[in-house]
Amino acid sequence: MASVDAVVDLLGVLAYGELSGFDHLVDDARLAPELTSRVAMSDVAASDYANYQRLVARLGALGADPFAAMTPFVAALEGYHALTAPSTWLEAVMKAYLGDGLAGDFYREVAAFADGETAALIDDVLRASDRAELAVAEVRGAIVIDPSVAGRLALWGRRLVGEAISQTQHVLAERDSLMLLLVEGTGDVAGTAGLITRITERHEKRMELLGFTPG
Amino acid sequence: MASVDAVVDLLGVLAYGELSGFDHLVDDARLAPELTSRVAMSDVAASDYANYQRLVARLGALGADPFAAMTPFVAALEGYHALTAPSTWLEAVMKAYLGDGLAGDFYREVAAFADGETAALIDDVLRASDRAELAVAEVRGAIVIDPSVAGRLALWGRRLVGEAISQTQHVLAERDSLMLLLVEGTGDVAGTAGLITRITERHEKRMELLGFTPG
Repeated sequence: MASVDAVVDLLGVLAYGELSGFDHLVDDARLAPELTSRVAMSDVAASDYANYQRLVARLGALGADPFAAMTPFVAALEGYHALTAPSTWLEAVMKAYLGDGLAGDFYREVAAFADGETAALIDDVLRASDRAELAVAEVRGAIVIDPSVAGRLALWGRRLVGEAISQTQHVLAERDSLMLLLVEGTGDVAGTAGLITRITERHEKRMELLGFTPG
Repeated sequence: MASVDAVVDLLGVLAYGELSGFDHLVDDARLAPELTSRVAMSDVAASDYANYQRLVARLGALGADPFAAMTPFVAALEGYHALTAPSTWLEAVMKAYLGDGLAGDFYREVAAFADGETAALIDDVLRASDRAELAVAEVRGAIVIDPSVAGRLALWGRRLVGEAISQTQHVLAERDSLMLLLVEGTGDVAGTAGLITRITERHEKRMELLGFTPG
């Protein structure tokens, strides 16, 4: 069983992830070509905010100050968003789907060893956000209309996974409690090497779902 | 009893008001001096989005296309937001409170003659958002610390009410159904003159609550 400190760290990074995700998705929704697609992304943002509120409630129930719990992770998550600011609607849609998937893969790996109630909440929060439908429809459609966009978007996908892994490593290097949780949770004493391999593989599956060919 | 067209117009302008309010509040929350106040404003934004979703559901129940219902009001509401973009946290807090109050005053005047279920929903939606607490604490506190800010903020309050009234007049001039609803709802055959007086008076009450002296 993980220490309370580690669980508070985990809930803190997850809560700030949902809060900053909400914040940036609302911005990115402005890139939408029309009101219907803008609202589709705003819906995702609103569900991120509901997740944030549930995680903050859990932090409160554990006796932790939610703001103190989130603060250590603000720089890493804002760094990720600053380095992956989408400049087109397709980039925004890909980020919403792939970034969420990357975060979900990481949290699932470490959540297993949290207390039962926290683990169930995290599982539920990760399940609540499904952006695949929007992303698949928009990206596949765009590649069919203009195959020349595929190359640029494939690079964008690689940038998203690269920055996500880089920021995750920063966070793990600074928070011993999370690194311990990861080692306990995965049984992988090598730390992040195996995690990165697994996260990259799942990212590739999502890229294929979007219509990109592997390689 | 108002025509269905008028009710669809009313729900449409209200829904886009909540959607654009949500959108701009999330932006404005970035002006917050710290994470706690940023989250206080994000909470308001999230409740706007929940209101938006309820209004869209009501439009659907009436057999109307929510996007078609909102489209006629996009320009006026985005115009209002473009002309009242806050440049400081105190301006943002004042706009969240005063702008919401102005909108509420207007909608309450015209909602009375909608069908019972719509009127109850609108009343409930308007009740759901109470931003007075945040605004009063922040603005009163700032004026106590530095009385010289009061003059500039009082001008900002006047700008907010001026732009709100101006955009309302644009909307009413273009949408006969809403103008009819207003005349029916208020019994005021002179149209907007009485409405503007009443809205301005209530705005002044809110300014006093924020710590500004009348005059």
